[in-house]
Amino acid sequence: MASKKIKVGIVGGTGYTGVELLRLLALHPQVELTAITSRGDAGLPVADMFPSLRGYIDLAFSDPATANLSACDVVFFATPHGVAMSQAQALLAANVKVIDLAADFRLQDTAVFEQWYKMPHSCPDVLSEAVYGIPELNRENIKSAKVIGNPGCYPTTVLLGLAPLLEKGYIDFSAPIVADAKSGVSGAGRKAEVATLFAESSDSMKAYGVAGHRHHPEIHAQLTQLANADIQFIFVPHLIPMIRGMLSTIYVKLTDAAKAVDLHALYEQRYQHERFVDVMPAGALPETRSVRGSNQLRIALHRQGSDYLTLIVVQDNLVKGAAGQAVQNMNIMFGFDERSGLEVLPLLP
Amino acid sequence: MASKKIKVGIVGGTGYTGVELLRLLALHPQVELTAITSRGDAGLPVADMFPSLRGYIDLAFSDPATANLSACDVVFFATPHGVAMSQAQALLAANVKVIDLAADFRLQDTAVFEQWYKMPHSCPDVLSEAVYGIPELNRENIKSAKVIGNPGCYPTTVLLGLAPLLEKGYIDFSAPIVADAKSGVSGAGRKAEVATLFAESSDSMKAYGVAGHRHHPEIHAQLTQLANADIQFIFVPHLIPMIRGMLSTIYVKLTDAAKAVDLHALYEQRYQHERFVDVMPAGALPETRSVRGSNQLRIALHRQGSDYLTLIVVQDNLVKGAAGQAVQNMNIMFGFDERSGLEVLPLLP
Amino acid sequence: MASKKIKVGIVGGTGYTGVELLRLLALHPQVELTAITSRGDAGLPVADMFPSLRGYIDLAFSDPATANLSACDVVFFATPHGVAMSQAQALLAANVKVIDLAADFRLQDTAVFEQWYKMPHSCPDVLSEAVYGIPELNRENIKSAKVIGNPGCYPTTVLLGLAPLLEKGYIDFSAPIVADAKSGVSGAGRKAEVATLFAESSDSMKAYGVAGHRHHPEIHAQLTQLANADIQFIFVPHLIPMIRGMLSTIYVKLTDAAKAVDLHALYEQRYQHERFVDVMPAGALPETRSVRGSNQLRIALHRQGSDYLTLIVVQDNLVKGAAGQAVQNMNIMFGFDERSGLEVLPLLP
Amino acid sequence: MASKKIKVGIVGGTGYTGVELLRLLALHPQVELTAITSRGDAGLPVADMFPSLRGYIDLAFSDPATANLSACDVVFFATPHGVAMSQAQALLAANVKVIDLAADFRLQDTAVFEQWYKMPHSCPDVLSEAVYGIPELNRENIKSAKVIGNPGCYPTTVLLGLAPLLEKGYIDFSAPIVADAKSGVSGAGRKAEVATLFAESSDSMKAYGVAGHRHHPEIHAQLTQLANADIQFIFVPHLIPMIRGMLSTIYVKLTDAAKAVDLHALYEQRYQHERFVDVMPAGALPETRSVRGSNQLRIALHRQGSDYLTLIVVQDNLVKGAAGQAVQNMNIMFGFDERSGLEVLPLLP
Repeated sequence: MASKKIKVGIVGGTGYTGVELLRLLALHPQVELTAITSRGDAGLPVADMFPSLRGYIDLAFSDPATANLSACDVVFFATPHGVAMSQAQALLAANVKVIDLAADFRLQDTAVFEQWYKMPHSCPDVLSEAVYGIPELNRENIKSAKVIGNPGCYPTTVLLGLAPLLEKGYIDFSAPIVADAKSGVSGAGRKAEVATLFAESSDSMKAYGVAGHRHHPEIHAQLTQLANADIQFIFVPHLIPMIRGMLSTIYVKLTDAAKAVDLHALYEQRYQHERFVDVMPAGALPETRSVRGSNQLRIALHRQGSDYLTLIVVQDNLVKGAAGQAVQNMNIMFGFDERSGLEVLPLLP
Repeated sequence: MASKKIKVGIVGGTGYTGVELLRLLALHPQVELTAITSRGDAGLPVADMFPSLRGYIDLAFSDPATANLSACDVVFFATPHGVAMSQAQALLAANVKVIDLAADFRLQDTAVFEQWYKMPHSCPDVLSEAVYGIPELNRENIKSAKVIGNPGCYPTTVLLGLAPLLEKGYIDFSAPIVADAKSGVSGAGRKAEVATLFAESSDSMKAYGVAGHRHHPEIHAQLTQLANADIQFIFVPHLIPMIRGMLSTIYVKLTDAAKAVDLHALYEQRYQHERFVDVMPAGALPETRSVRGSNQLRIALHRQGSDYLTLIVVQDNLVKGAAGQAVQNMNIMFGFDERSGLEVLPLLP
Repeated sequence: MASKKIKVGIVGGTGYTGVELLRLLALHPQVELTAITSRGDAGLPVADMFPSLRGYIDLAFSDPATANLSACDVVFFATPHGVAMSQAQALLAANVKVIDLAADFRLQDTAVFEQWYKMPHSCPDVLSEAVYGIPELNRENIKSAKVIGNPGCYPTTVLLGLAPLLEKGYIDFSAPIVADAKSGVSGAGRKAEVATLFAESSDSMKAYGVAGHRHHPEIHAQLTQLANADIQFIFVPHLIPMIRGMLSTIYVKLTDAAKAVDLHALYEQRYQHERFVDVMPAGALPETRSVRGSNQLRIALHRQGSDYLTLIVVQDNLVKGAAGQAVQNMNIMFGFDERSGLEVLPLLP
Repeated sequence: MASKKIKVGIVGGTGYTGVELLRLLALHPQVELTAITSRGDAGLPVADMFPSLRGYIDLAFSDPATANLSACDVVFFATPHGVAMSQAQALLAANVKVIDLAADFRLQDTAVFEQWYKMPHSCPDVLSEAVYGIPELNRENIKSAKVIGNPGCYPTTVLLGLAPLLEKGYIDFSAPIVADAKSGVSGAGRKAEVATLFAESSDSMKAYGVAGHRHHPEIHAQLTQLANADIQFIFVPHLIPMIRGMLSTIYVKLTDAAKAVDLHALYEQRYQHERFVDVMPAGALPETRSVRGSNQLRIALHRQGSDYLTLIVVQDNLVKGAAGQAVQNMNIMFGFDERSGLEVLPLLP
C-alpha cells in the first residue's frame, strides 16, 4: 500500500475548515502535507496555534506569497470567498488540482454569484470546468475534475436528503419545499465576532439569514438541476449552541405516485453502496452527535399522513459539510479508496 | 395596594414548573404561599432542595395527604398528568380555584385526551367548565374561571403566533401549516433519564416526537377553533442544548387577501395592549435569551416571496410557556394587575 | 417610600456590566436612568442592542462627549480601565458621585496600578479618597464615600471568603493561601475575541493568567490590610464554559487557636445581618446556578483533617461580582434600603 | 503487520467507558471484538443503542450469563465496582487476561478498598498479582501482567503530573500537596440521575466529594509509594459543564534542592519517549479540548515565586483517563505497538 504519496497544500490553515483538513490529512496514508499558508501567522508552527496537532503536524504556517504551491499535486482553499478564484488559474497551469471549500466554484451562474457574494467573479473560465463536489450525486465528474467547488454545509444535507425523491419525480411542487436547518456555531467560522461569543450564543438560539442566506441560491440551483423544474424553496437556518453538527428538517409534499411507494426502501437502495450516507431505520431520530467528527451523513424519513414526508438529515458541518467531503473528493480525483483518511469514528459522548 | 393576600398552594413543588412558580410567587405582593406538597420529599425544607430560594421560601414540602389545600384560595398543580383531575372536584367544592399546569384540562374532547395520555379522564364535569388559559386569546373567560387548563409550552408559541392571521382568515389552508419547534432541555422535566443527561444532550440536537407529540392535538384543537376550519398541521419538535428557551418557526401560505395587507401592522395592532406579547420590528431575529427568565413572548414576521410568511416566536418555556402564564392567569382570576409578580427582566447574558 | 428619585448615568452601557446595571436599575424604585453613553453606538436605542430590555428601557445611547452627566446624582463607569479616572474629577466637582466598575480606584498604590494596568494613574487625588466597595467589609466608609472603586469579581469571593478568619487571626501564614478560582466566560467581557468564541471555549476549560492576573495585586493588598501581615497568596483563575458564575476554592492552613473553634458558627455570626452573604449549612456544596442572576454570595466551609480548611465561595460574577455590588454600594451611599433593586431571585434551572 | 488478531471481550458495554472502548477497538488492527455483554440489553444490536457505531460494530449485546468470555484472549470490565473481582479468577484459569476499568484491582490494601467501596473484596489472591496500569510509571510490570487495575481518571492526572518531582525528591512535604481537579460530566457515568441532567449541570459548576472522594485513597497510596514517604494530600474535585475533559491544577512546595533545577527540562527528559505524555512549552496553558477524544495527556509547569510550583495537567477523562489507557495497557500486555488503535487526533474545535 502507501507507495508514493501526493503532495498537498492548504491555503488558509487557521480557520475551522483548515484545522479540520489538518486533522484528517495528518493520518491520511497517501498524503504528504507540504505547505499550509496563513497571511497573518506565517512562521508560526501550526501546532503552536492548535496544540491538538502537537506530534502530528510539524509544519509552520508559510507566507502565501512565497509558498511553493505549484509543486503540490492538489491545493485546498480553506479561505474566504474570492481567494481561490484569484489563484486557481496559475495552479491549474502548473498541473495542480484545486479544491475550494469556499463558494468561488459552486455557482455556475456568475451573475448569481456576484449578487450574493458582492464581488465580481474573476475566473469564469475555470468556473466553467469546475465540478460541484458531492460524490454521491456527481462521482463520475469528480473523477476527472481538476477543480472542485466543494459544497456548502447546508446544501449537502438538503441535496442528499432530497435527491432520491427528485430523481424519481416524487415531490409535488404545488407546495414549497421547506428546509428548516440548524447548525452548530463553528459554521460561523473562527473569526472574532460578538455574535458568536460564548456568552452571546450559549444557552440560546435564533434563526438567521431569513431574508436570504447565501446557501439558498446554491441549493436552489442544484435542486432545479436535479428536478429539471423550477422549485419553490423556503430555507430558514438557525444557530444552535453546539460546536459542531447540523440537522436539517425538510418538509415536502409527495406526488400521488409517491404515496404508494416504500420510500424507505427507495433511499436504502439509492445509497446502498455509499459509505458515508446512512439511511436510518424506520422511526429513527438521528442526533447530531452520532456523526460528531466523522464524515457520515444520516437520513431518516417520516411520513406524515398520506401526503407529506419529513426528512431529517444530520452531518458534522465541518466534516461531511466541509473538510471531510473535500478529502473524499480528493480521494476520488486521485483514484484512492474513497474512505482513505476518513475512517474516523464519531465521538460519542 | 397589597391589602389582603390570597393563600396559594402548590401541588408538586419539586419539578421545574414547581420551582419556577416558587421563584415567581416568592416576591408576588398579593400572594402568601401556604403549602407546597411533595410525595417523595415531605418534611424537607424547600430551600434545601433548591438553595436558590434560601431566604425567600421558608416552607418545607408537605405531604399531599395531609396538606390543608382546601384552605387555599387557589392551588396550582405542577404535577404529572392525571393528578389535578383527581383532586379538582374536592377543591372546587371547597371554593378553591385550580390552575393545572399539566394536560388534564386542556383538551375538551376526552377521547382525544385518553388517546394521547393513555389514561381515562376521571373528571369530565370539571373539564367542561375549564378554561384554556392563554390570556391574550381568552381573557374574558379566564376572569370568571374556576379551573384553568394552563396551555402546553409549544401551543402557546404556535397559537399566539398564528392568532392574528387566523382571526382575519389570512391563511390559505391548501398548504399545511408547518411548525418546526425547538425547545430547551428543561422542557423534558426534572426526572432522572438517560436521554436528558448532560453528557447525552449537550453539544448535540435531535428531533423527537415526530410520529406524534402530545401537543399536536392540543394545538390542532385550538387552531381549528380559531380558524373555524379543519387545518392540516405538521408539527416537529426538536431538543436543543440549552436549559430554557423555545423557538417556533412557523411556515404558512397566505390567502390572496392577505398578500396586500401590512401584516406587521396587523400584529402590532392585535397585541398593542398586551404586556407580554412583543411584536418585534421588521427584520428582527429574536433570540431565546431575550426572554430568559421572563414572561415575554416575542414574535417576528418574515415574508418569503409574495405567497408565504414565516413566523418566529420565542418564549421561555418555563415562564410564558408554563409557570409565568399560570401566574398571569391567577392574576386575572383574582382581579390583580396582570403584571403582578411578573415584572422580572430577562437575564442577558 | 419612593418619594424623589435620584438621577443615574451609566458611562459605557454596551458591555456586560453595563447591560447588567440596566437590568437591575430598570426596576429600581428610587432610580431614574437619565443617560447611557456609548462611543460607538450613540443614537441607537438601548433596547435595539439588547431586546431583553424592550419595554423597560426607552433611552437611546448618547454620545459621551455631549451627555449631560453632571446633572446626575451618581454615574457608574462600566468602561475599560482608565476612563473613570479621566472624568471623575469633573463629576465630583459637579457634586456627582462616582462608582467605577473598572480598576481605576481599586488599588491605592499607584505604582502597583501602573505596573499591572500599563498606564499612568492620572487621578491620584481622587484615588486617595476612593473607597473600596465591599459593603460587608467596608460599609461605614461607603456611606460617606463620593468615589467607589467597585471590586473585581475574583477579589469579592476571596475577601468575603477569608475575612472572618483574617479578622480573628486564624490563618497560619506558614503555608500559602491558595485560591483556585473558576469563572464563567462573561467575565472576559463583551468584546470580539477568538479565544472566547463559543466554538473555542465551549465544552472545554483552561487555566489562564497563571503568570500574573490583575486581580492578584488587588486581592493581595486587601488581604494584607485585613491580616495586618504580608501573606503568601497563590491565585490561579480558570475559564469555565458557563455564561455567568464564579466559584473560588480556597485552601488555608489554620492556626492552632483556630483548630478548636467552631468556624461554621463564626461565619454565621460574622454574616448574620448580611442580606447578600449566605453561609451554607455544614457539608454544603454550592452550585454557581444557585446565585445565577442574583446578588447573593454563598460560602461553604470544609475542614480537611485538623490543620486545613477549604472554603468554597460562589457568586454571579456580573452581579455580586460587579453590577449588583455597585448598586448595593449606591444604595448605601444614598441611604436607600441596601436591598433596593436587588431583590431578584436566582434563575434555577 | 496484522497477522493474527486477538479475541477481545467487553463486559458492560453500555456505559461511557464501554462505548469508548468500542470506538477505539473497532479500528484496532490487531483486535477482533467477539463479545460485548449487557445484562439489561442482551440481544440489542450495539449500533442500535449507539448509532455512532453503525457500520463499525455489527455485534449485538450478549447475556453475561451465556457469553463465551473464556474463549477471549483478554476481557475488559467496563462495569460497576465489584463485578470484575467476581469473574476474574475463572477467566484467569481459562488463560484470559483481565483489564478492569473499575476499582476492584486498584487498591492493594483490601481494608482501604472495603472502607471506600462499601463491599468486601472477594478476590484478594487475584488482587495481589494485579498491576496498577499507568504505563508511563509501570510499563515493565504491565508487560507480564495478567490482571490490570486500570487507574481512575483523577489519579492518572495527579500521578503523571507529580511523578518526575517525586522520583527526584523535589517536593517539600511540610506543605500539603493540593490537587484542585475539574472533570467533565461524563465522568459521572451514563446512568439516570437528576444531578447530572443537562438542565441541572449545564451553565453551572460545583465542587463535590470534598469530604472524601474514592480517588483520594488511590492517589494517596500511589503517591506514598512514589515518594516513599507519607504525604499530606488535599483533593477537591469539581464538576464542569463539559462532556469530556479533565484538568487538574496541582500546587506543590519545592525543596531547596529543586529550586535551582530546570524543572521543565526534567519533565521533558522524563517523558521524552512517551507518546501519550506531552510536556508543554514554558508558559503554556493547555485546554481540555486539546486532548478531546485522544489518549494524550498534557502537562504544563508554572513556577510561582521561588518556592512553589503549579502543575496543570489535562486529559480526556474517557480516554487516557479510562478506555484509552486500558487499550494502551492491552497493547503492552500483548506486545503490540503501544500506539496501536490509539492514533486518533483530538477533535478541535
